[in-house]
Amino acid sequence: MKAITVKQPGGAEQLQVVEHEKPTTKDGELLIKVEAAAVNRTDIVTRQNGSSYMKNPILGVEVAGVVAEAGAGAKTAVGTRVMGLVHGGGYAEYAVMPDEWAMKIPENLSFEEAAAIPEVFLTAYQTLFWIGQLRPDETVLIHAGGSGVGTAAIQLAKQIGQANVITTAGSKEKLDFCRSLGADIGINYKEQIFDEEVLKATNDQGVDLILDFIGASYWNKNLTSIKVDGRWVLIGVLGGAEIEGFNLMDVIGKRIQLTGTLLTPRSDEYKSALTKEFYSKTLELFTDNKLKPIVDHVFPLDQVQQAHEHMENNKNIGKIILKMN
Amino acid sequence: MKAITVKQPGGAEQLQVVEHEKPTTKDGELLIKVEAAAVNRTDIVTRQNGSSYMKNPILGVEVAGVVAEAGAGAKTAVGTRVMGLVHGGGYAEYAVMPDEWAMKIPENLSFEEAAAIPEVFLTAYQTLFWIGQLRPDETVLIHAGGSGVGTAAIQLAKQIGQANVITTAGSKEKLDFCRSLGADIGINYKEQIFDEEVLKATNDQGVDLILDFIGASYWNKNLTSIKVDGRWVLIGVLGGAEIEGFNLMDVIGKRIQLTGTLLTPRSDEYKSALTKEFYSKTLELFTDNKLKPIVDHVFPLDQVQQAHEHMENNKNIGKIILKMN
Repeated sequence: MKAITVKQPGGAEQLQVVEHEKPTTKDGELLIKVEAAAVNRTDIVTRQNGSSYMKNPILGVEVAGVVAEAGAGAKTAVGTRVMGLVHGGGYAEYAVMPDEWAMKIPENLSFEEAAAIPEVFLTAYQTLFWIGQLRPDETVLIHAGGSGVGTAAIQLAKQIGQANVITTAGSKEKLDFCRSLGADIGINYKEQIFDEEVLKATNDQGVDLILDFIGASYWNKNLTSIKVDGRWVLIGVLGGAEIEGFNLMDVIGKRIQLTGTLLTPRSDEYKSALTKEFYSKTLELFTDNKLKPIVDHVFPLDQVQQAHEHMENNKNIGKIILKMN
Repeated sequence: MKAITVKQPGGAEQLQVVEHEKPTTKDGELLIKVEAAAVNRTDIVTRQNGSSYMKNPILGVEVAGVVAEAGAGAKTAVGTRVMGLVHGGGYAEYAVMPDEWAMKIPENLSFEEAAAIPEVFLTAYQTLFWIGQLRPDETVLIHAGGSGVGTAAIQLAKQIGQANVITTAGSKEKLDFCRSLGADIGINYKEQIFDEEVLKATNDQGVDLILDFIGASYWNKNLTSIKVDGRWVLIGVLGGAEIEGFNLMDVIGKRIQLTGTLLTPRSDEYKSALTKEFYSKTLELFTDNKLKPIVDHVFPLDQVQQAHEHMENNKNIGKIILKMN
């Protein structure tokens, strides 16, 4: 089968289409004929560093496709259209998925749309509700509103969280799109000072929850933006990881809860439980088009280099998809 | 009545015994004839900075005594022996206590022992269970094991949490005492490298929860000592507040939850709810002497300067008490 591997750690030019042996399933696993896979930042990190959480030479942590074979004990039938996380190996014609991670694709969604769901919606669900404990009528600040996780988080915070959403992005186009997804307030971080806007919008109280993909470059403004007893979930460091002069009294004085998280390296059991709860809470909303997978661009598999470069240029709104055929 | 106020922000010499008007109660409040009050770090900070969370010129955030008057709606009867937090004003012959904060003193405890309970046991309860979410069989690292909060936390983690307790202190005497309270492992931070000892004791896994009063000087060792998905509750900065080169990837990589907290500035409702739950879970254990208030030294009210200096020298094991008569 065709698959994407990395020649040696480095840039997008290191990605190569290779002929690779078709994987085999164990008990409780499904073999998926992959129709679409999505590109994630973790794939770029794996490509650059040459090491992965996944122990799989083939990139890719999520797919949508059709069940081709079902191992003993798997409950999903051959022929079912499914989407879900995989243990790496998503950028390929066939991939193995634990049966417990397989979500039946709602009939109104294409494979390309379905492939845009698992990683970012599960991450957003986990950070907003499991870690962030978002409650109705609270206010959440979602940075990088146009990103894959951002577009998912805005929708989940509104549709499931019944929360107020403030989001930041770097262009009017992205902010208009975020508002179309339900964001109450959009802040252009290139033209406005976001913490000042957040305080204006919250009667100087700050927000209950911050979803932070940015890290260092937003650190002090996030400190200003967060409410006393606020929760702050850190899921990325696109703006750097090193904080100079971090003062613990800021954390004590505002009684902040700061939690770092990642989805990919978590245990199989965690991902199974998260998938199960997420699917039960969102299936109807996806079926009714109240939640929408956001697809920015679909690339054929052999244009995987362009797909990675597109993400690295931060031009996308929503997900970048690889189509297998 | 006699009371302690601060002449001007500064050292212990600024503390003075003054004649002050007796306070009056409002609805839902009790007037307490104070028999004993306890010294807390927050009192020292108030003395040094001249500003308090309490808007009360008289120091002191907890007392034990007898109800002298009960405002309308208060459920506690005149004559009842009670202990509890107060809105400042504890270092005095009379103090006002919200009725909802009043805990009836178990018969086996003296006023001096009772005054040693509220602040440190409520703080330890809050940090271990409400914030730290300590579960049975987990391992908690309690720094400053000989301190007021430390001695309370060791006992609560064992008696209520059924957890494994590792504690640090700076002398054999303090560590022996911590072990007598139930600590499973004691580490002398002056003679041993505590993170190495923690890893040895936890099969290289680290601890589930850290109670951190120290801050900056222990930062990197705490990072090494904490387990993946560990919780870290920060309630003091005795070892400094400023972290140089704080790397957010440490927080993300181990998926750490870092929470800053303080008890004193929290809302009345929070303290009422905490007091109620704490009292219901601990009354029988105090009555049966399974939980013990730890009194280091009792000073008469007019030796308040010596009492503060004793705390500032970090010589105490457990609480420092002021006796009114």
